Parts: sequence; structure tokens; C-alpha cells
Amino acid sequence: MKKILIVGAHGTLGQAISQALSHHQLIKAGSRRGEALVDLTDGDSIRALFERIGKVDAIISATGKLHFGPLAEMSADQFRVGLKDKLMGQVELALIGQHYLNAGGSITLTSGIVSEQPIRFGSNASAVNSALEGFVRGAAAELDGGRRINVVSPNVLQESWEQYRDFFPGFEAVPAARAALAYVRSVEGVQTGQTLRVW
Amino acid sequence: MKKILIVGAHGTLGQAISQALSHHQLIKAGSRRGEALVDLTDGDSIRALFERIGKVDAIISATGKLHFGPLAEMSADQFRVGLKDKLMGQVELALIGQHYLNAGGSITLTSGIVSEQPIRFGSNASAVNSALEGFVRGAAAELDGGRRINVVSPNVLQESWEQYRDFFPGFEAVPAARAALAYVRSVEGVQTGQTLRVW
Ligand SMILES: NC(=O)c1ccc[n+]([C@@H]2O[C@H](COP(=O)([O-])OP(=O)(O)OC[C@H]3O[C@@H](n4cnc5c(N)ncnc54)[C@H](OP(=O)(O)O)[C@@H]3O)[C@@H](O)[C@H]2O)c1
Ligand SMILES: NC(=O)c1ccc[n+]([C@@H]2O[C@H](COP(=O)([O-])OP(=O)(O)OC[C@H]3O[C@@H](n4cnc5c(N)ncnc54)[C@H](OP(=O)(O)O)[C@@H]3O)[C@@H](O)[C@H]2O)c1
Repeated sequence: MKKILIVGAHGTLGQAISQALSHHQLIKAGSRRGEALVDLTDGDSIRALFERIGKVDAIISATGKLHFGPLAEMSADQFRVGLKDKLMGQVELALIGQHYLNAGGSITLTSGIVSEQPIRFGSNASAVNSALEGFVRGAAAELDGGRRINVVSPNVLQESWEQYRDFFPGFEAVPAARAALAYVRSVEGVQTGQTLRVW
Repeated sequence: MKKILIVGAHGTLGQAISQALSHHQLIKAGSRRGEALVDLTDGDSIRALFERIGKVDAIISATGKLHFGPLAEMSADQFRVGLKDKLMGQVELALIGQHYLNAGGSITLTSGIVSEQPIRFGSNASAVNSALEGFVRGAAAELDGGRRINVVSPNVLQESWEQYRDFFPGFEAVPAARAALAYVRSVEGVQTGQTLRVW
């Protein structure tokens, strides 16, 4: 039984991850919901969370806002939304969290299929998701003590299909429960530096 | 003969690119050197440059600072160096530049081998270079009028080998002149949304 921090545990994806890992001791965090509150866009808030909960065996993030909109109208400030929230939120969780991660522990972040399969209005998502995949390739090479880091890249979730379908023509939505398996693989398996695709 | 803006034209890589494209009309820009001065970390400076030079047939960037350092000591502020400089500098050049790009024109950015082949102290470089590769995949899908966008991912350059060799054990440095060919391919060829690897 591992002690696992799940940030975004009450979100669409996070609920399924929590379910799939319910045989472990879970600390369910979110920005507004959850037993532990944290704002990933604020380093002090992340540090305070780890000071409160102490060392863990796994850190999972299923959070992150992106900017969706036409390239022709996109401003640098709009583009920075995804950098600040989905990218730096998760990167800073990893940068701080590595110091609260027991030997043999793992960090699992979340990207998404748009990193590799572009969609209309998705240039910010493609950049941010790709950055997360690059980050885990780089970071995995430096973690020691058997610590690992991966990122899960889910397809659109069936649970979110009504909301996103217009942007994902011909994409095959996956159940959140299927995406959740990749987090189990990352936490209980041996891989590191990998993008675990759920397509 | 195309009218081509090269930002970073007097850098190690940029000099070779300028040489390889010398049969075109080049506008050589840089932050301190060049006939046109621009600071890519400042949107107003980019807009002022394009207002001065007018529409172009190709935009090339061979610029961008990254943070290199141990993951275990990396702060979010250090990580943001690469986001602000190499990533957002080039992304904002593309976001603004698309409106000054003639039909059939191209944008070519620069990433680097570390996006795919991690090195010690390179997690920021892996993230930033991967983000640029994701960005061009996404942006290419939305450019119209035959406009294209690619990114060149060079190996370490022979010209920079003495400076970087300790971080690149067993990497096969390439001449800047060979890397420059990929920019010619991007400008005069037909590809879009591609990462042109020079390995
Ligand atoms: N849904 C999809 O189809 C899909 C597909 C591929 C990838 N993804 C990716 O999966 C991730 C989660 O998506 P989702 O659809 O599950 O989102 P969601 O339902 O909106 O849930 C987001 C969760 O993140 C938490 N959160 C938001 N901002 C936060 C912050 N600043 N600090 C800490 N926690 C924060 C929220 O906390 P509260 O619960 O307190 O509000 C919530 O639990 C995102 O990165 C998304 O891009 C989603
Ligand atoms: N060198 C390598 O081995 C290698 C390998 C793979 C990838 N790369 C990538 O290739 C790119 C260029 O590398 P390099 O070695 O040629 O660098 P470099 O010799 O330092 O040249 C950088 C160029 O960018 C310009 N520049 C810097 N900051 C700028 C800003 N804020 N706004 C506008 N221009 C700016 C500089 O202008 P001034 O001329 O006015 O100073 C200079 O011309 C970088 O993205 C690097 O990561 C390099």
C-alpha cells in the first residue's frame, strides 16, 4: 500500500484515477474540492501542501488549463495561459515534489493526445502537452533512488465528449476508467521518462 | 528570390543559415548585432520590426536561451528562463509574424536534439524544445494560403563542441553548415508541421 497524492482527484479524469488506485492510501487534492487544497500555480501553496502531508510514494497530477482558440487571433498572453497553468503548475509540482518523494516513488503528470495529433484551435495545447512529454524525458534521466516520472497522454474522454466533440472529429473517445489504467501502470510499474498513450 | 527575415543571423547557427540562403534577400536581425534590432522577449519590439520591414516570404529564428542545471536544484523561476526566452520568444515571433507573411511563405523555428535525446541537466531544454515541436504541429494545421511552419532540431554544432562537449557524451556534433540545409529545406520546400532533425 502506497501513500499517493492525487492533485485534481475530483475532476473528470481524477475521479477515475482515484477509483483505480483505491487500494492505496490516497490524499485527494484539488483547488476547491478535496481533503487537501492546493493551487499548483503558486509554489508556496505546493510547498505548504507537502509540509502538511509529508513524504509520499507517488504524486499524480490530473489538472491544467489550456488556451483553445484560432492561431490567427492568438496573443502571447493567451498562449501563456497554458504555460502558466497546465505546464508550470505540473512542472513545479514535480520540482518541489521530488524532495518529498520516497525512494522508489513516482511522479505522473497529464498531457493529452493533442501533443501528437493536432486539432483546430489547438496550437497552445500541442505546445504545452509536448512540453510536458519533453520534461519527463529530461527529468527521468536525473531522478535517483529508483524515483521515476512519466506522463499520461489520454485521448478525449467519453465523459467529456459532449463538451469537446466539435474539436475532435473522428477521434475515438476513451472511458476515463481506461485512461486511469495508465496511471496505475506508472505508479506500480517500472517505466520512467515515458509518455503513456491511451488512444 | 525571397525576402527572408533571419533573427539571430549573426549567431553561431544563424551565420551558417545566412550563408546557405545568401541567394535570397536577407534581413539579418539580432538583439545587438544586425541591420535590424529586435528583442524577441518583447512583443512590441517584434511588432515594430515588422512594421519597419513590411511583409516577408520567410521568417527564420535561430535564437533562444535555455536553463541548464541539475533537476534536484531547479527552481520554477529558473525553469521559466527557457519558457520566456527560447519558447515564447519564438512563439511570439510566429504569432505576430503570421500577419506579415506573404501567401506561400514559411516560418522556421529552432529546437534541438535534447527534445528527444535527454542529457544531464537538460530537463528545461527537453521541455522547451519539445514545446516548440508541438507548437509547429498545431500551428501548421491552421495556417492558410500555403503558409507553412517547421522547426529545425539540430544536434550539437561542431562550432559549439568545445563549449558543450561535457554535456553531450557520444553525441555526433554536426557542422552548422549541415544544420543550415534544413532551413533551406523548410524555406524552399513543401513540408509543414515538421520537426526537421539534423542528426
Ligand atoms: N477531459 C478530457 O477529455 C481530457 C483528455 C485528455 C487530457 N485531459 C487532461 O486531463 C487533465 C484533467 O482534465 P479533466 O477533464 O479531468 O479536468 P476537470 O474535470 O476540470 O478537473 C480538473 C481538476 O484539477 C483541479 N485543479 C484545477 N486547477 C487547479 C490548480 N491551479 N491547482 C490545483 N488543482 C487544480 C480541479 O480542482 P477542483 O476539483 O478543486 O476544482 C479539478 O479537480 C487536464 O490536464 C486535461 O487537459 C483531459
Ligand atoms: N550551438 C549549438 O550547438 C546548438 C545546437 C542545437 C540547437 N541550438 C539552438 O540554436 C539556437 C541558436 O544557437 P546559437 O548557438 O547559434 O546561439 P548564439 O551563437 O548565442 O546566437 C544567438 C543569436 O540569437 C540572438 N538573440 C539572442 N537573444 C535574442 C533576443 N531576445 N531577441 C532577438 N535575438 C536574440 C543573438 O543576437 P546578437 O547576435 O545580436 O547577440 C544571436 O544572433 C538556440 O535556440 C540553440 O538552443 C544550438
